[in-house]
Amino acid sequence: MSERIRIAILGYGNLGRGVELAIRQNPDMELKAFFTRRDPSALKTLTPEVPVYNVSKAVEMKDEIDVLILCGGSATDLPVQSPEYAKYFNIVDSFDTHAKIPEHFAAVDKVAGESGKTALISAGWDPGLFSLQRLLGNCVLPDGHDYTFWGKGVSQGHSDAIRRIDGVAGAKQYTVPVADALERVRSGENPELTTREKHTRECFVVAEPDADKARIEEEIKTMPNYFADYDTTVNFISAEELEREHGGMPHGGFVIRTGVTGEKGETKQMMEYALKLESNPEFTSSVLVCCARAVYKMNAAGMTGCKTIFDVPPAFYSPKSGEELRKNLL
Amino acid sequence: MSERIRIAILGYGNLGRGVELAIRQNPDMELKAFFTRRDPSALKTLTPEVPVYNVSKAVEMKDEIDVLILCGGSATDLPVQSPEYAKYFNIVDSFDTHAKIPEHFAAVDKVAGESGKTALISAGWDPGLFSLQRLLGNCVLPDGHDYTFWGKGVSQGHSDAIRRIDGVAGAKQYTVPVADALERVRSGENPELTTREKHTRECFVVAEPDADKARIEEEIKTMPNYFADYDTTVNFISAEELEREHGGMPHGGFVIRTGVTGEKGETKQMMEYALKLESNPEFTSSVLVCCARAVYKMNAAGMTGCKTIFDVPPAFYSPKSGEELRKNLL
Repeated sequence: MSERIRIAILGYGNLGRGVELAIRQNPDMELKAFFTRRDPSALKTLTPEVPVYNVSKAVEMKDEIDVLILCGGSATDLPVQSPEYAKYFNIVDSFDTHAKIPEHFAAVDKVAGESGKTALISAGWDPGLFSLQRLLGNCVLPDGHDYTFWGKGVSQGHSDAIRRIDGVAGAKQYTVPVADALERVRSGENPELTTREKHTRECFVVAEPDADKARIEEEIKTMPNYFADYDTTVNFISAEELEREHGGMPHGGFVIRTGVTGEKGETKQMMEYALKLESNPEFTSSVLVCCARAVYKMNAAGMTGCKTIFDVPPAFYSPKSGEELRKNLL
Repeated sequence: MSERIRIAILGYGNLGRGVELAIRQNPDMELKAFFTRRDPSALKTLTPEVPVYNVSKAVEMKDEIDVLILCGGSATDLPVQSPEYAKYFNIVDSFDTHAKIPEHFAAVDKVAGESGKTALISAGWDPGLFSLQRLLGNCVLPDGHDYTFWGKGVSQGHSDAIRRIDGVAGAKQYTVPVADALERVRSGENPELTTREKHTRECFVVAEPDADKARIEEEIKTMPNYFADYDTTVNFISAEELEREHGGMPHGGFVIRTGVTGEKGETKQMMEYALKLESNPEFTSSVLVCCARAVYKMNAAGMTGCKTIFDVPPAFYSPKSGEELRKNLL
């Protein structure tokens, strides 16, 4: 490896830590810096030899960094950070508010188009790898149906929503795909599935002493948007059990395309993609890191502006040459 | 649709017929011509309004055709046809002799580089969609293992090999993935699997009257390369049963990447892709047709020379705009 791709991380939560670890698995990459909005001296990373700077120092280091990976949240961080840093850096973000992607794309594209940088937004697995599978399914089998199931996995947003209820000391929520619905889809029956038919929600809740558990359960099950449209089960457990049994962040899911071909649509065809992840943030970070390589290569190839996973020639994710890839993986 | 992509088909076997049908499912495409090495008047297509020409007429029609889809075989047709026609046409082929892909790529790339055409080779599902999944798996989880299983499905090559045995009137061979091996892979155990442990071979054979079935069975089971390394079962059936129960060409398979992430590789992650196809040639053809669209767009974008599925920006497979794709599929 003559020259390594120089990466910096902005934001050191679960995702930032995952990126830090994923870079270790990719010898063509080098972690140059962490940027944080906190006091840098208070940040304990897993790689103490890599400097931690306040984010205010990022721009002056722009020539030492090939790709900046933004590890903030979609609600308030990325809508500001991605357009801001695409002025100076090639960036990757994991913006995952599906409904606001067009708006985020436009904001980032405007800046990156002017700066000549490459910005890959909405990387990860959904949006990301799942989107790619949906696209391929639609293109290969235009006469068909799409299904995306999530889980079994922890939904951070739903867990947070439970924790905001009065009398709740801790909570973890699992989104669970309904096995029977999955089987109906795989059979090629093309069912129309309601929200309730596709997923159930399992909640593990630690109540505060003397809290009214019946009231908490009722508040969870009737919470609009989050739980009201689902069959929800609520299990009250101890703080110790929550810690011991539900400390991880597993996730995953399925993208299925069922379609027909033939003279009269008589031939059933099925494409299925599944992820089974023991750690959602570590996997998402692994995607972000190979997307950073793709961004670096796209920028070198003159592909500037805002991009998504739909625009990336897949070979760009890899450190290997086209020749090696054709020989060993095609 | 203002202007449709004009497609021509060279070779009218199962694949050519599949392409003919797939084009009907893609309203942005138009089938302009069939080319055949046979007597054109003898060819009965499913689309009689589309002209059939002898292949000798192809070159003079080059300005009327945007993409030529080559539907010949990998053994003798494509090694000649792909370099020949890449002189005049953007082409797609399904060259699937894995070991000879580098050589085929070089031959086609030389010609297409000079002619300014775009040639996508080795399209289909393996090589093709499966290759893409292997690439993604390797890039996202660099510390991991790859597994490809095929089936349950008909292997044309193995069926042909049985039919060449003296005393055999007809045969169909199914490649079957071993369920236990699949489960071991999915568990993250990372087993080293021998050829015999991954797949079994099921043969349905029609013997000629008075043929020595024991000898036929022995010849099948000991045939080098094709069967000797597998657990093979041979079932003798009637010609009627072969026709009735084994007339289709189903296939499919699995690409699995198991890998680890985390500080000490303590986190297991799994990516799995599966195809379940009632008709292998119709599905392969559907892939070829959306690859033809990608070739058309790549050529318009100045991406000339020989390409594989590793080089295609996924949005190019779709008739939809980037805006629509980001809004609806990302």
